[in-house]
Amino acid sequence: PNNRPTICTADEQNCVSITSRVHFDVGGYDYRPNTAATSPQKLDDGVNLRRARIGVLGKFLGDWNYALIYDFGGSSDGFASTASIGAAPGVAGTSVGFLPGGALAGIEQAYLSYTGFKPFGGKLAIEGGYMDTLYTLDEATSSNDIMFMERASSGIIAQNIAAGDFRSAGGARWYTDTFWIGAYATGPTAGAIHSASSLNPNGATEQLGSFARAAGQVISGKDYSLHIGADAEFLIDPSRNQVTGAQTLTLSDRPELRLDPTSLISTGALAGVSGAQVYSAEAAGTYGPLFFQGEYFWYNVDRSALPGLSSVKFDGGYAEASYVLTGETHTYNSSLAAYNGIVPANPFSLEAGGWGAWEIAGRVSTVDLNDQLASANGVAGGRQTVYTAGLNWYANRNVRFMLNYLHGDITKQVSATNFGDTGAKFDAVAMRTQVAF
Amino acid sequence: PNNRPTICTADEQNCVSITSRVHFDVGGYDYRPNTAATSPQKLDDGVNLRRARIGVLGKFLGDWNYALIYDFGGSSDGFASTASIGAAPGVAGTSVGFLPGGALAGIEQAYLSYTGFKPFGGKLAIEGGYMDTLYTLDEATSSNDIMFMERASSGIIAQNIAAGDFRSAGGARWYTDTFWIGAYATGPTAGAIHSASSLNPNGATEQLGSFARAAGQVISGKDYSLHIGADAEFLIDPSRNQVTGAQTLTLSDRPELRLDPTSLISTGALAGVSGAQVYSAEAAGTYGPLFFQGEYFWYNVDRSALPGLSSVKFDGGYAEASYVLTGETHTYNSSLAAYNGIVPANPFSLEAGGWGAWEIAGRVSTVDLNDQLASANGVAGGRQTVYTAGLNWYANRNVRFMLNYLHGDITKQVSATNFGDTGAKFDAVAMRTQVAF
Amino acid sequence: PNNRPTICTADEQNCVSITSRVHFDVGGYDYRPNTAATSPQKLDDGVNLRRARIGVLGKFLGDWNYALIYDFGGSSDGFASTASIGAAPGVAGTSVGFLPGGALAGIEQAYLSYTGFKPFGGKLAIEGGYMDTLYTLDEATSSNDIMFMERASSGIIAQNIAAGDFRSAGGARWYTDTFWIGAYATGPTAGAIHSASSLNPNGATEQLGSFARAAGQVISGKDYSLHIGADAEFLIDPSRNQVTGAQTLTLSDRPELRLDPTSLISTGALAGVSGAQVYSAEAAGTYGPLFFQGEYFWYNVDRSALPGLSSVKFDGGYAEASYVLTGETHTYNSSLAAYNGIVPANPFSLEAGGWGAWEIAGRVSTVDLNDQLASANGVAGGRQTVYTAGLNWYANRNVRFMLNYLHGDITKQVSATNFGDTGAKFDAVAMRTQVAF
Repeated sequence: PNNRPTICTADEQNCVSITSRVHFDVGGYDYRPNTAATSPQKLDDGVNLRRARIGVLGKFLGDWNYALIYDFGGSSDGFASTASIGAAPGVAGTSVGFLPGGALAGIEQAYLSYTGFKPFGGKLAIEGGYMDTLYTLDEATSSNDIMFMERASSGIIAQNIAAGDFRSAGGARWYTDTFWIGAYATGPTAGAIHSASSLNPNGATEQLGSFARAAGQVISGKDYSLHIGADAEFLIDPSRNQVTGAQTLTLSDRPELRLDPTSLISTGALAGVSGAQVYSAEAAGTYGPLFFQGEYFWYNVDRSALPGLSSVKFDGGYAEASYVLTGETHTYNSSLAAYNGIVPANPFSLEAGGWGAWEIAGRVSTVDLNDQLASANGVAGGRQTVYTAGLNWYANRNVRFMLNYLHGDITKQVSATNFGDTGAKFDAVAMRTQVAF
Repeated sequence: PNNRPTICTADEQNCVSITSRVHFDVGGYDYRPNTAATSPQKLDDGVNLRRARIGVLGKFLGDWNYALIYDFGGSSDGFASTASIGAAPGVAGTSVGFLPGGALAGIEQAYLSYTGFKPFGGKLAIEGGYMDTLYTLDEATSSNDIMFMERASSGIIAQNIAAGDFRSAGGARWYTDTFWIGAYATGPTAGAIHSASSLNPNGATEQLGSFARAAGQVISGKDYSLHIGADAEFLIDPSRNQVTGAQTLTLSDRPELRLDPTSLISTGALAGVSGAQVYSAEAAGTYGPLFFQGEYFWYNVDRSALPGLSSVKFDGGYAEASYVLTGETHTYNSSLAAYNGIVPANPFSLEAGGWGAWEIAGRVSTVDLNDQLASANGVAGGRQTVYTAGLNWYANRNVRFMLNYLHGDITKQVSATNFGDTGAKFDAVAMRTQVAF
Repeated sequence: PNNRPTICTADEQNCVSITSRVHFDVGGYDYRPNTAATSPQKLDDGVNLRRARIGVLGKFLGDWNYALIYDFGGSSDGFASTASIGAAPGVAGTSVGFLPGGALAGIEQAYLSYTGFKPFGGKLAIEGGYMDTLYTLDEATSSNDIMFMERASSGIIAQNIAAGDFRSAGGARWYTDTFWIGAYATGPTAGAIHSASSLNPNGATEQLGSFARAAGQVISGKDYSLHIGADAEFLIDPSRNQVTGAQTLTLSDRPELRLDPTSLISTGALAGVSGAQVYSAEAAGTYGPLFFQGEYFWYNVDRSALPGLSSVKFDGGYAEASYVLTGETHTYNSSLAAYNGIVPANPFSLEAGGWGAWEIAGRVSTVDLNDQLASANGVAGGRQTVYTAGLNWYANRNVRFMLNYLHGDITKQVSATNFGDTGAKFDAVAMRTQVAF
């Protein structure tokens, strides 16, 4: 599919494919901090290579599926690392700054999936490794097919807790044409510290989490469909710093554009975290060239690892809609329980006269990382609302251009007990050039 | 072979193949330090992507063979780096900690081999670049085919001196069906510092070493074979720190499992090192589904670069045996002078009814890094003995699962002259999911 | 071409190819600093993996061309990074040293080019992304085809300002068989800092530049050709450190050999840089097996961002010639406006009796980074003259060996106002093993 080169043995039971993906972004911000106390004061304009993947996909003896995919792009397209400075061996160090948003590891996916069992008339995949986890509808949608340049912050914040891609996971999913259910245990992301005993940087345990998702296409007909689902995610055992004993969790995200890798809203490192849960509901549907999708998330963070800290709760969600001007429709991918992107009926060609597919889209997205304001143990992570308008041009099966305009509003105070304004507003325009096979 | 996709020109004289390898480990330790003075006090449980390789192999005009293989897994699956902090330009810096065990370079192999000469009825390969050197029987065995998740520590310690993979090397090997001999000069590993003049980190020379190996299948019949060999390795000129003038060498290894990248035994940086030699003997054999292998190493480190330091000597070895329950045998690879893994006669398939190949294995491995204890210039690197039991399931040619149980015993004292106990004991269970083509 | 494996759809409109390149260098210097005040005092001998590339090339619907190429070699073949140490959050840090010359990013090329418009009987390519920019004749020549192991310093210094490879760029080129013209806007290289607000390392803006080139084969006949061209490059808006406000530019290069990644000549970080321009002229030609090429560069750096600093001017160039002993000629590549390497008429083969192609070459190269000496605001970057003799053996289309002998002379003083001698002389011998497809 999609001109992906594949070489198989004569019996088609063993195949290897090459896959690649480039998402190259260019754009700029008009960022307006409300006060001099707002952080950051500036955002960076210019270019960023958001994804730069080369990988191999394998099928062995029909039932075993394999992927190893490198990614050397990212929220910043260079390398970062993990480090600290020690005054002496055996003394914990102070922080060293690295390229913010740079890659910690080159491994996006490295997993094996077995699909030989086919119970109850459906398909079962038992799989493990570093994976692109199918948690939330937006994440189950390929980054080649998402409606805007970045997924909504409310989903990203949820995925980063114990899912998303680059994530170690093991579990199973079972699906039919219209129903999908899956459950996975998850660990750290690729590039997390694996030493328990180092001091520079501090050793840490690997986190343990899990998620489950059930979704289905409850209605579908010739030119319409409706998808609904529910998701639950659990941070069971947060990573523990083996030197300080600290167990922390940070909820944050960039403002739905990553030319600058800086987040505008963040809870900071919540202390004493013993676990976290996220529950969400998802819905999407099509009516001919019309498409809509929405999800809502409720986050709860338990802070019982330290005395006197109560749980904190946050929430957020998004709703988006699009219209394909050239009439194509978003088809459904039952193995992911998510919608595909557009395959243009008439690819762009000066010779053949095709103009590709054109789609307009809009999204409103909000997330509130404030809780227990005015309380000493409250959290003032800020509230972000972003309105995005998008124009997508699908030149052919492999090439897509995206133009996004964003208007964002950040309401944030200095701390839970200091109501000083550290909010900001921004407008941004950015374009993505996307090639994938 | 092994479903590796290959594209050739019509005359089959020019071919390019794609190769890939994932070794994904999961498991945990029950680690028990003998005293509070033992270091480390803890080991990390969880996951690690031990190998994550994508590479291209080329053959040009029949006789030239090429490989470029990236690896972004490792003892810790993120990036590390080399760094220090300088108070001012021109002043040597203090240490900065990086992700322990993280990748210093992405290059596992990058070499060219010429096989056009075929003297004395054998095959001759003249080759150079970054290579997977064929020093020691265990290293000559592909990591896809090794009996346990990690090679024995005694061999790893030897290989790290001037051989192993990621190693710059140039030399030649000549082999027939039953005899193999090779000799190589070796330099640093990929990612070593190449600057002589930097201060932050300190400039250093590139090390120079060499190794030679002679091995052969002295007996072989319809269902049995016996392989013996001898190896010698020389560190001729250790890397010299151009700022301090120090020439050091560290012998150490992880406890034959690398979920945590921490070594339990280590000589520390031996000072005044002017050279080192390792001599070893190797033997292996098969009798139908039975397989055994063993090697023993004698290490000598010369410390004549500093006055008053005598040479220090260490030794270690391992013996392992396995039995393939399903009856297959380990075949011999004469180009490597090592045994291959198992190709299952009946690959696992629910449809066809095959169950793959199943193998049980055991190993005892020991290495002693203590010498001249009670002397001020002695070395108390510790002694490690590990007993490993393994169960290998070869689902098909490309997929293997390994289950290892380890029991290890570390006897170690604070220093050569302080007999305080810093030993430890551990048990560990780990599983590897392996995919390769 | 060149045995590059390619898989296409049946209509040949969609193709994916795999490309790879290894340049493995080994050699040493006899480096002789004039005085103890010279920096550096030493250079490193040994090996370096100069280029280690794996990439995919795609063609989609005939007119869209794509490349994603990783490179994990470099002037030093490990990873570097960007970092600093902060005393506290919000306080700008001090410098941390990293592997000098190590890779900052793994992305050499990631771009999309559209060639569907074909105006005025020529071919037009509209393209953008991270690219190997076609600025200067030497850079337009593939690194597989350059005459010596390293391009001349005068060209490298020019390319590094706002062009070269790993460079973000967008623009167009139009060419016929004999004429080529192109113009591009350029940004930072891959791995530059993308944060405007970080303090550790300091946030910075992305630089903006551009270049244009016009070149053509003004004369060509059966066994001769003459190419001339002119290039202009502009640094329009240098990167601005968002913490200190500094806008700097450093002109420097290694001594046309990179076993040691240290530069011998450097202006240091020129302060107050508001822009820079480079103008150059290029010429090349063939007469049967004879080949010659030369370029000359005039650099101007405006320092009007700080009061009292005048513009500084530098210049440099090179001339080289070669003779192919086996009679082949360098053909012309009109899409790049540069000459190709040699394709041996009789590839090396013991069986077929061919000896490949052999070429001898010589180059004189000089660049002067001194200006306004004896003035307090002058620049004493040094003057470098290198004479290189080369022997190239093209074993076949994919394998080349290069042997270079260099004699270099650096005249440099302590500072613009301190005439103390910090020059050096060196001789060096190095060999490259090159494999590419």
